Amino acid sequence: MHESDAGLLAPGRAGSAAEAATGDHAFLQALLDAEAALTRAQAASGLAPAEAGRAVTAAADASRFDVRDLALRARSGGNPVIPLVSALSAAVDDDVRPFVHQGATSQDILDTAAMLVASRTLAILLDDLGRSAEAWERLAAGHRDTPMPGRTLTQHAVPTTFGLKAAGWRSLALDARDRLRAVRDALPVQLGGAAGTLAAFSAAGGDGAGLELVGAYARELGLAEPLLPWHALRTPVADLAGALAFTAGALGKAAADVLILSRTEIAELAEGSGGGSSAMPHKANPVRATLIAAAARRAPGAAATLYGSLVAGDERPAGAWHAEWEPLRDLLRLVGGAARDTVELAEGLEVFPSAMRSHLSSTGGLIVSERLAAVAADRVGRARAKELLTGAAGRARDEGGSLAEILAGEPAFDGLDLAELTDPARYTGSAGPLTDRALERR
Amino acid sequence: MHESDAGLLAPGRAGSAAEAATGDHAFLQALLDAEAALTRAQAASGLAPAEAGRAVTAAADASRFDVRDLALRARSGGNPVIPLVSALSAAVDDDVRPFVHQGATSQDILDTAAMLVASRTLAILLDDLGRSAEAWERLAAGHRDTPMPGRTLTQHAVPTTFGLKAAGWRSLALDARDRLRAVRDALPVQLGGAAGTLAAFSAAGGDGAGLELVGAYARELGLAEPLLPWHALRTPVADLAGALAFTAGALGKAAADVLILSRTEIAELAEGSGGGSSAMPHKANPVRATLIAAAARRAPGAAATLYGSLVAGDERPAGAWHAEWEPLRDLLRLVGGAARDTVELAEGLEVFPSAMRSHLSSTGGLIVSERLAAVAADRVGRARAKELLTGAAGRARDEGGSLAEILAGEPAFDGLDLAELTDPARYTGSAGPLTDRALERR
Amino acid sequence: MHESDAGLLAPGRAGSAAEAATGDHAFLQALLDAEAALTRAQAASGLAPAEAGRAVTAAADASRFDVRDLALRARSGGNPVIPLVSALSAAVDDDVRPFVHQGATSQDILDTAAMLVASRTLAILLDDLGRSAEAWERLAAGHRDTPMPGRTLTQHAVPTTFGLKAAGWRSLALDARDRLRAVRDALPVQLGGAAGTLAAFSAAGGDGAGLELVGAYARELGLAEPLLPWHALRTPVADLAGALAFTAGALGKAAADVLILSRTEIAELAEGSGGGSSAMPHKANPVRATLIAAAARRAPGAAATLYGSLVAGDERPAGAWHAEWEPLRDLLRLVGGAARDTVELAEGLEVFPSAMRSHLSSTGGLIVSERLAAVAADRVGRARAKELLTGAAGRARDEGGSLAEILAGEPAFDGLDLAELTDPARYTGSAGPLTDRALERR
Amino acid sequence: MHESDAGLLAPGRAGSAAEAATGDHAFLQALLDAEAALTRAQAASGLAPAEAGRAVTAAADASRFDVRDLALRARSGGNPVIPLVSALSAAVDDDVRPFVHQGATSQDILDTAAMLVASRTLAILLDDLGRSAEAWERLAAGHRDTPMPGRTLTQHAVPTTFGLKAAGWRSLALDARDRLRAVRDALPVQLGGAAGTLAAFSAAGGDGAGLELVGAYARELGLAEPLLPWHALRTPVADLAGALAFTAGALGKAAADVLILSRTEIAELAEGSGGGSSAMPHKANPVRATLIAAAARRAPGAAATLYGSLVAGDERPAGAWHAEWEPLRDLLRLVGGAARDTVELAEGLEVFPSAMRSHLSSTGGLIVSERLAAVAADRVGRARAKELLTGAAGRARDEGGSLAEILAGEPAFDGLDLAELTDPARYTGSAGPLTDRALERR
Repeated sequence: MHESDAGLLAPGRAGSAAEAATGDHAFLQALLDAEAALTRAQAASGLAPAEAGRAVTAAADASRFDVRDLALRARSGGNPVIPLVSALSAAVDDDVRPFVHQGATSQDILDTAAMLVASRTLAILLDDLGRSAEAWERLAAGHRDTPMPGRTLTQHAVPTTFGLKAAGWRSLALDARDRLRAVRDALPVQLGGAAGTLAAFSAAGGDGAGLELVGAYARELGLAEPLLPWHALRTPVADLAGALAFTAGALGKAAADVLILSRTEIAELAEGSGGGSSAMPHKANPVRATLIAAAARRAPGAAATLYGSLVAGDERPAGAWHAEWEPLRDLLRLVGGAARDTVELAEGLEVFPSAMRSHLSSTGGLIVSERLAAVAADRVGRARAKELLTGAAGRARDEGGSLAEILAGEPAFDGLDLAELTDPARYTGSAGPLTDRALERR
Repeated sequence: MHESDAGLLAPGRAGSAAEAATGDHAFLQALLDAEAALTRAQAASGLAPAEAGRAVTAAADASRFDVRDLALRARSGGNPVIPLVSALSAAVDDDVRPFVHQGATSQDILDTAAMLVASRTLAILLDDLGRSAEAWERLAAGHRDTPMPGRTLTQHAVPTTFGLKAAGWRSLALDARDRLRAVRDALPVQLGGAAGTLAAFSAAGGDGAGLELVGAYARELGLAEPLLPWHALRTPVADLAGALAFTAGALGKAAADVLILSRTEIAELAEGSGGGSSAMPHKANPVRATLIAAAARRAPGAAATLYGSLVAGDERPAGAWHAEWEPLRDLLRLVGGAARDTVELAEGLEVFPSAMRSHLSSTGGLIVSERLAAVAADRVGRARAKELLTGAAGRARDEGGSLAEILAGEPAFDGLDLAELTDPARYTGSAGPLTDRALERR
Repeated sequence: MHESDAGLLAPGRAGSAAEAATGDHAFLQALLDAEAALTRAQAASGLAPAEAGRAVTAAADASRFDVRDLALRARSGGNPVIPLVSALSAAVDDDVRPFVHQGATSQDILDTAAMLVASRTLAILLDDLGRSAEAWERLAAGHRDTPMPGRTLTQHAVPTTFGLKAAGWRSLALDARDRLRAVRDALPVQLGGAAGTLAAFSAAGGDGAGLELVGAYARELGLAEPLLPWHALRTPVADLAGALAFTAGALGKAAADVLILSRTEIAELAEGSGGGSSAMPHKANPVRATLIAAAARRAPGAAATLYGSLVAGDERPAGAWHAEWEPLRDLLRLVGGAARDTVELAEGLEVFPSAMRSHLSSTGGLIVSERLAAVAADRVGRARAKELLTGAAGRARDEGGSLAEILAGEPAFDGLDLAELTDPARYTGSAGPLTDRALERR
Repeated sequence: MHESDAGLLAPGRAGSAAEAATGDHAFLQALLDAEAALTRAQAASGLAPAEAGRAVTAAADASRFDVRDLALRARSGGNPVIPLVSALSAAVDDDVRPFVHQGATSQDILDTAAMLVASRTLAILLDDLGRSAEAWERLAAGHRDTPMPGRTLTQHAVPTTFGLKAAGWRSLALDARDRLRAVRDALPVQLGGAAGTLAAFSAAGGDGAGLELVGAYARELGLAEPLLPWHALRTPVADLAGALAFTAGALGKAAADVLILSRTEIAELAEGSGGGSSAMPHKANPVRATLIAAAARRAPGAAATLYGSLVAGDERPAGAWHAEWEPLRDLLRLVGGAARDTVELAEGLEVFPSAMRSHLSSTGGLIVSERLAAVAADRVGRARAKELLTGAAGRARDEGGSLAEILAGEPAFDGLDLAELTDPARYTGSAGPLTDRALERR
C-alpha cells in the first residue's frame, strides 16, 4: 500500500524483464551477492575461513530482508549498505560475523552491485536489440526495392526505398549493440576499502594481498578486474551513461520515423497492434513508438547527470556518487523498456507499399525534379536547367498536372522518355546496393 | 517482493512526507480524486445525476485498486487511465457507470492528478522551506557579528560574517518559497476531451456547457481554472520544472557551503548528527548536506527534460507528454527530500566561531591586504601601494610573520595603528547592515 | 580572419538584433557601462570627484578597446574584467585613475554587465513576442471557425479549429512574455566588493555608505537594487534561465505544429517564403520553423547548466560562475533568434482551409466516431455503442465507405440525421468560445 | 567591431589551438576542403574532368570568402552551404562550375566539414592529453610514497598517497585518450545526395558509381568510409558527444581535487602560477583548475543536446541536425581549452608533502582508527573494538590528545607498539603497488 513506485507512471517498462532486473529486490540481491562474493574471495585468499564464505552466501538471499526497512535505515549514513551489513551480520553465526564486509567500505559493495545489475540488465537488452535487428533485417531485405518518398525537412525530396530506411534502423541497433557489448565486457568490480588503498586487506594479508583479493573478487562475480579502485574515477558509470543514451536515441530514431509514417495522412506504416482510446473507438495509436520516443526524450538528461558525476572530488565524493544511483537505474530501465517495445514494434510493423507508391506520384513527378534538372543541365546548362525546372515545379503546384505533361515538348528534353524519367521508382539511386552492403554487417 | 522501487537507492527521500505524497498509491488516489470530481462537477452542471457523483466518489478509494495490475495494463494504451476507467467503472453500479469518465480523455485525468499531487507535495515543501528559513534566520541573527574568512575561488579573500552567509542561505530559501508559491497558486485542472475542444461536454449540454464544466471541475478540486485546455500547452509543467530546479539549487548552495566548511581542516561548521561509517569509528560525515548536494546535481537534468516537453506537437503529442510523468515526480521527490534534509541540517547545525577566528588570523593579516592597499594608496598612490602589499604578502607567505610586523616602520603607514588595521574583525564592511536588511524580508 | 565566431553555424540568430545585443562588442560596452556607472555612483555618493565620473564615462567606449586582446589577457586571471580595468585605467588621466573600479571586484562588473545585456536583449525579445502574438491573434480570429482535424498521438482524433490552435500558440507567447517581463523588471546590479561585504566602500564612507552606493549604482543603470550581493546567490541568472528556456519551448511548440502541418502529405500550412534547396528545384522547406525547432532543442541543456550553477560554494565559486557566461548568452541569442524567426513565420504563414476540410472527410466520418458513440450510448448503452462503432470503424477502414453509409439503417441511429451527425464541421465543441476567451487575454 | 564572439567570455579557450581549429574561419576552410575533395573524388571516378578537381581545390581558400556574408545569407535556406556553393561557383570558371557540389546535398558538405574539424581538433586534444598524462605520471612516480590524508565525504578517512591520487588522474586521462582515439579513427565522410540514396551520382555513373565515389571521397580526406549515408543516423556525432563529455569530466576530476587541496586551510597543492586579483594583492587563485571545472560543468548539457539529436526523423530532420552544429563545436572547444589548461596545471603543479604530513597527524591518529579497530577486533571482538575506538575517538576530539596516548594501557593493545600502529605513513595499504600497476599502463 505504500509502494513508492510500482510502475504506474512507467508503462514503457512496467512488466519488462529489465524492470525486474533493476528493481529494489534485484538491487538488494546484487548487494548481497557482492557481500557474499567478497567473503568467498577472502576465503579463497586465506583471509577468511571457507566456512564463512559458505555461510554468508547462504544468508545472502534478498527475500529474507525487508527492503523498505533497509531503505529507511539508509538515511542516517546516507547509503543502504550500512544497514544491510548490520542485517546480514545478524543473519549469520557469531563466528562468521567478523567476515561479513570485512575490510570493505560501503561503496565497494554498492558499486559492485550496480555493475552486477547493469551486467544482468545489459544481457536482456542485448537480446532484445538482437531480436529487433533481425526484424529490421527482414523488413530491409523484403523491401529492398520498395520505393517510397525520401523526406527531408518534412518535404518530399527524392525517392528512396523502405529497405534502405529499415537498413538504417538496423544499423543503429547494431551500433548500439556494439557499444553496449564493449561496455558490458569491461564492467569491473569495485574494491578499495575506506579510501581506495586496500589498506584493511593489506594489513591482514601483506602488501600484495589487496591486489590479489581484487582479482579473486572479480572472478567470483564474473566481472572485470580494475587496475585501480574507482571510487572517484567513474569511467564505468560514464561509459554506461554514454552507451545507454546512445541506445535510447538509436531506438528513438526508428520510433520517430514510425510516428511520422503512421500519421493518418501518410499511413505508410502501422503498428501491428495499435493502442486503443477510451473515447474514440476508431483510434489505433502508435503506442509502442510513443513510449520509445518518450524514453529517448528522457535518456539524455539522465546521462548528463552521470557525466557530471565524473567530477568527483576527494577519495570519495559528497554527493556526486549519491547522485548516480537512481539515474543509472533509470537509464537501464528506460532503455530496457524501449528495447522491449522496439521488438514488438519491429516484429509487428505493417508496411503499406501502395501508400508509398501513391505518395511518390502525388506530386506529379516533382519528387524527381533533381533528376530532370541534372538531365537538362547536361543539355542546356545548369542555370537554364534550374530556371526551367523551377518554373515547371511552380506550374505543377499551382495548376496541377504532372511534370511529364508540363515539360512535354520542351526542347531540353527532346528525344527523351519523360514518362520513364519522371518515374520515381526508377530514381532510387544506390538504395539497393547500399541496403545489401548494410545487411552484410553482422 | 517485486516492488520496483521502495526507496532503497533514495535515502534522500525515503520515508519523507514528500515521498508518500508522490508515491504510486498517492498518484492513484489523485487519479481517482480527479475522476470523482469530474463526475461531481458534471452533476453540479446537470450533466449527470447527483447520485452518480456520490457513488463515484465513494468508489474512488485507492486502497481498493491494485496499483501493480493497473501499471501492467497501462501498457497497451500507453497510460494508466485507460485501465483505471475500466476498474472504476466495474466498481460502481450499472446506472452510474455511464457517468464515469464521461466525455473525458485520459490526459484530462492524468494531468489533473499530476497537478493535485504537485499541489499536495508543494504544501509539504513550503512548510519545510519555511522551517529552514527560520533556522537560517536564527543563525544569521545570532551570528550577525561573527567574523569568518570570506572565500573566493577557494582562497581567503577578505573577512565576512557567518551572519551574512546564513542570511544569504535564507534569502535563497525565500526566493524558492516565492517561486513555488506562485506556481502552486496557478496549478490548473485539465479538461478538454479528446482534442481539447470540450466537444463531448458541449454536445451534451450546449456550446457553453463545456466552459462552465471546467469551472465547476476546478472548484471541486481547489485548483485553478485554465483559459484553455493545455494538453499541448505545457506551461504548468514547465513552471513546476523551473521552480523546483530553482529550489534544488537554492538548497544545494547552502549544502555546498556546509560541505566546505565542515571539511576536517576547516571545521567551522558541523552537522548536528553526522553519519557514521561502517569501517571508520571516528567519522562523522556531513550526510544531510551530501544528500542535498546529490539532489541538486540531479534536478537540472530532470528540469531539462520537462522544458523539452514544451515542444509538444499536435493536440496531444506522441511521447513528449509521456516523458513528463516520471521526471516531474522525480523533481517533486528530490526537492521534497532535500527540503526535509535542509530542515534537519539547519536546525542542528553546529557553528564554531573560534575556528573561524583562528582561520582569519592564520594568514598573518593577508586577509585584510585589500584594506591596507587602499589605505596606502591614499598616501602613496595606487601603483606603489600595490607593489608594497604584493611584496609584503610574498614575505608573509615565504618567511612567516604577520603583515603588521612586516609593514612596521613602512613610511606609507606612518602614524597608523597597524594592529587595528590588520584586525580582520574590524574589516567586515557592511556585513552587519546587509544582514539586518536581508532579515527584514518576510 | 581569426574570428572565432561570426555566425557561420548559427543561421537561427545571424544578423538578428539579439545577436548584436549579445555579441562581444555589446558585452564589452556593457562592461564599460558598468564601470562608468560605478564611478558616477561613487561621485554621487561623495566617494569620488564628479569629474572622475564624467571622465570614465567618456573613456568607456567599446570601439576604443581591442576585444580580442582583452579576451586573450583574460586568461591569466580567469575573467575579462581584470585586463579591462588596466586598459580603462590607461585611458584616463592620472588623477582619475584611482576612481576606476574603486573598491569593486571583477564579478561586480561582469554580473552587472550581464544583467545589462540581458535587459537590452529582453527588450528586443519582448517586442518580437508581441509581434508574433498579434499575428497569431489575427490568425486565431480569422480562423475561429475553420475546422481541421484534431490530432493526438499522430492520429486523427476529433475535429478542432485552426483558430483554437492559433489561440494556443498565442497563449504560449503571452505566457512567455509574462515570465520574461517579470524577470526583466527584477534584474539587479551586482555590487559587493571582494567578498560581498561592501567593505572597501564602507571603509571609505562609513558603515552605511556601501548600501547607499548600491542604490545609487542601480539608479545609474536602471536596474533593480538587490537586497544582498548575489555573487554566490544566483537567483537572477536562474530566473533568466527558466524564463528563456520556457520561451524557447513555447516558440518551439508552434514551430513543431507548423512542421507537421506543412508536411507534403498534409499541407494545411506553409511558410510564406520557404527555403530553397541547392539540389531540388521544387522544394520549399519550412526553414523558419526548422531553425526555431533547433533552438528549442538546445535551450534546455543551456538552462540545465545555469540551474546547476546555483550550487555556488563560498563567497565566490571556482567554476560555477565561470560556467554561466556563455550559456546565458547562448540562451539569449537562441531565444532572440527564434523570436525573430517566429515573427516571420507567424506573419507570413499560409493557411489552407480546403486541405483541412479535405482531411476531415478523408476518414469517412471516423473523426466523429466519439460523437456517434455518445449518441448511440444514450440509446443502446455504452458497451453496445462501443461495439457498434468499433465494428463500423473497422469496416470503414477495411472496405472504404463512410460511417454514414455503413450505419444507415442501424436501429441505434433510427430517426437521426446521420449526414449531419457525421459532419466534422458540426462537431468542434467549444472551440469557438474557447478561442474567444483566450483572445480576450491581453 | 561586429564580431559576435572573439572569446571575451571564454578565457578557458581563448587563444588555444583548439579555438583556432574550430573557429568560423577553420570551419569555412573545412567546408571548402569538403567541396574540393568531392570534385577531386568525382574526377578520380570519371564523373568530372581532372582539371575541375584542380580548379575547385585552388579556389577553395577560406581567406577569399567573407564568412560574415555567408553567415547572413545562410538564413534563407537554413544552412551555410547553400550560399557557399554560390560563392564557390562564382570563383571558378564557367566550365568548372557544373562540377562544384555536383550531386551533393548541403548536409554532405556540412557533416563532412564537421568531421574534418573534429578530426583536426582531436589531434590537438590528444597531444595535450598525452602531455598531461606524462606530467601526472611524473608526479605519481615521484610521490609514490608521499602519504596524505585520504578524504571521503569531505572528512579524513584513512591515509593514502599523493602518488596514488596522481595515478588516478593519469588513469582518467588515458581513459579519455582511448575513447577519443577510437572515435577519431572512425570519423566518416558524409555522402548521400538529396535523400541519402546517392541517386545523382548513380544516375551519372551507374548503380555502383555512388558507392565507389564515397570510397574515393573518404580517401581524399583521410576520413573513414561509412557503410551508409548517416544524414539521419547520427552515430558519429553521438560518439563525439560521449567521448568529449567523458574527457571534460575526466579533466574536471583532477581540477576538482586541485581546487580542494589548494584551499587556504589545506594548501597541500598550489597551481604553479596562480591568477591575480584586481582588489587583493595577496591572492593566488587556482585559475587553471577553475576554468577546467567550468568546462566540466558545461559539457554534459551540450552532450545531452547531441544525444537528443539522435532522434532525427525522416531522411533529414527539421531541427535535430541544425541543433548539433554549435553544441558540437562548443564541446570541442570546451574540452580543447580544458586540455590545454590541464597541461599547464599538471606541469606546473606545486606539491607540499609537509602540509600533507601535518594534516595526517592533525587528528591525533584518528585517521588510522580503522587500523586500530581491526587490530583490537582480532583480540577482543568486533563489537568491543568498535566501542573502544568510538570512545577513544570521542575523547580525542573533545579533549585533544592523540589516540596513542588515550589508548596507552588499554589491554586490547597490550604488547603492541601504539606509536607505530598510529603512524599514518605506515597505513597506506597497497597504495604503492596500485600506483606501480597503474603506471605500467601505456
